[in-house]
Amino acid sequence: MRTYLDCVPCFVRQALDSARRCTDLPEIHEQLLREALTMAANLSFDSPPPLMGRLIHRRLRELTGQADPYRDAKKTANAFALQLYPNLEQLVHRSSDPLAMAVRMAIAGNVMDLGVKSALTESEIRAAVDEAVEGQMDPGAVEALRQSIVSAGDILYLADNAGEIVLDRLLIEQMPLGRVTVVVKGGPIINDATREDAEAAGLADMVEIIDNGSDAPGTVLDLCSPSFRERFDAAELIIAKGQGNYETLSECGHRNLFFLLKVKCVIIARDLRCRLGDMVLRKHEMGSQNAAAGPDDDFDR
Amino acid sequence: MRTYLDCVPCFVRQALDSARRCTDLPEIHEQLLREALTMAANLSFDSPPPLMGRLIHRRLRELTGQADPYRDAKKTANAFALQLYPNLEQLVHRSSDPLAMAVRMAIAGNVMDLGVKSALTESEIRAAVDEAVEGQMDPGAVEALRQSIVSAGDILYLADNAGEIVLDRLLIEQMPLGRVTVVVKGGPIINDATREDAEAAGLADMVEIIDNGSDAPGTVLDLCSPSFRERFDAAELIIAKGQGNYETLSECGHRNLFFLLKVKCVIIARDLRCRLGDMVLRKHEMGSQNAAAGPDDDFDR
Repeated sequence: MRTYLDCVPCFVRQALDSARRCTDLPEIHEQLLREALTMAANLSFDSPPPLMGRLIHRRLRELTGQADPYRDAKKTANAFALQLYPNLEQLVHRSSDPLAMAVRMAIAGNVMDLGVKSALTESEIRAAVDEAVEGQMDPGAVEALRQSIVSAGDILYLADNAGEIVLDRLLIEQMPLGRVTVVVKGGPIINDATREDAEAAGLADMVEIIDNGSDAPGTVLDLCSPSFRERFDAAELIIAKGQGNYETLSECGHRNLFFLLKVKCVIIARDLRCRLGDMVLRKHEMGSQNAAAGPDDDFDR
Repeated sequence: MRTYLDCVPCFVRQALDSARRCTDLPEIHEQLLREALTMAANLSFDSPPPLMGRLIHRRLRELTGQADPYRDAKKTANAFALQLYPNLEQLVHRSSDPLAMAVRMAIAGNVMDLGVKSALTESEIRAAVDEAVEGQMDPGAVEALRQSIVSAGDILYLADNAGEIVLDRLLIEQMPLGRVTVVVKGGPIINDATREDAEAAGLADMVEIIDNGSDAPGTVLDLCSPSFRERFDAAELIIAKGQGNYETLSECGHRNLFFLLKVKCVIIARDLRCRLGDMVLRKHEMGSQNAAAGPDDDFDR
């Protein structure tokens, strides 16, 4: 997905919110804000939005001298999600369709995105879980995913955020574990899951964990390691979690990729032709750019 | 009032909204957005926010080749307000305190601000009028204004927006007309009232109308004409309407100035130590910077 003009005011707000979240020093708030403005003024709108997020958060780490400013937030999110886990596991096991219920739980976990919203309460997470049990989801996409899981020899699960990755585990446990590899980010970026979070979620004893070699908040293939890109190309099924992975992979050429996300932004809603708040499980339609805007487009590109 | 860091994402959004409002050409939307980002990156935060608005809208006029892109919107707002006028005039006349009711109507008119919100419906304006009849207002400030009107030899009424100026007329009619001068902007800026709008409101046969010689969306004294500044300094009472005038005059040295506005922005609410949506009639406390933030400040300056 390219960057829309409407993404820009949001980048600026996110830069300021993130700076305030990570330091109390007003001079750093102002400096990051000014630098984000300059970056945005010179941005290529052909790039997906997470490239801008990567630049802002790299600069924030430099300015604050903190290698991983969201580390505590990630630990808190994992711990909270692990508290929820036993009940949600029961919910999945007791469901008449455990795979579909696990997909719902994984989507609910996708609210734990501190890039979109710099603070999130436990009650918001609980509400997302409650909503996800009942919310609308495309039954055809669930069936397509079920078939792909059965037949794929090698499944890559591109994780999104800390905390969320605990709820992803519910879905991963519905798959043949020996064929699943969970992919985390190559370095700290916002609250995206790294290896530490996959381990905290209890995935290390269950499946292979690799990182993608990049600190972009998504999967920017050009920035990923050669070894990850080989795995990406070779995988028979890819499950790409969250908005960042949608934004960066919506025009990729993989032949069997499913996007799994909660829509938290009006621009992405429009790109996906759905509504804010929707739960999305969608098979990527290679080549057709499933998200391409039509001529009735009422946004600028 | 200085520019807060939180004003910056709002400037960027306003630049994009204004560009879209004034032209369908996406290349102009992008260009104004990029230029606004660069302006904001180099902005002095010591200046009041309307200076940035002035730069953005000057550039928008240049890029679109439209000398007055809000001209139609201003005419529509005047026409709509003139439709409301007879009923509101009755409301004021029948009130047990016509001056206080006229102040309420003038504040209601302040919702017609296309700088803050690029589109406004007639029902929103009607709702603002209904709210204003009942809303809280400082009775002490009304009494202070009443006394000032009685005793002031020369009253300047700094108008804000088109449409709104029709509702200002209700308040102006409560004053000794021979001593009132209505001040409009020196050139088109957003939907701020110019001489044409004061005339459309029916004020020309009633009071003196002057302009301030500037196209800032507020009263930036350094940018105003010498003749206006003389009138400003000499006036025994100044009524400064709207957020733009508050932002640009909150630290001025005039000894008898009242701010009259509807609070439409959280930053101004905080600067005024009141709440979003409040109706404000407040006597300016010269020298104390009535709006200065205390040490318990939880915003960056």
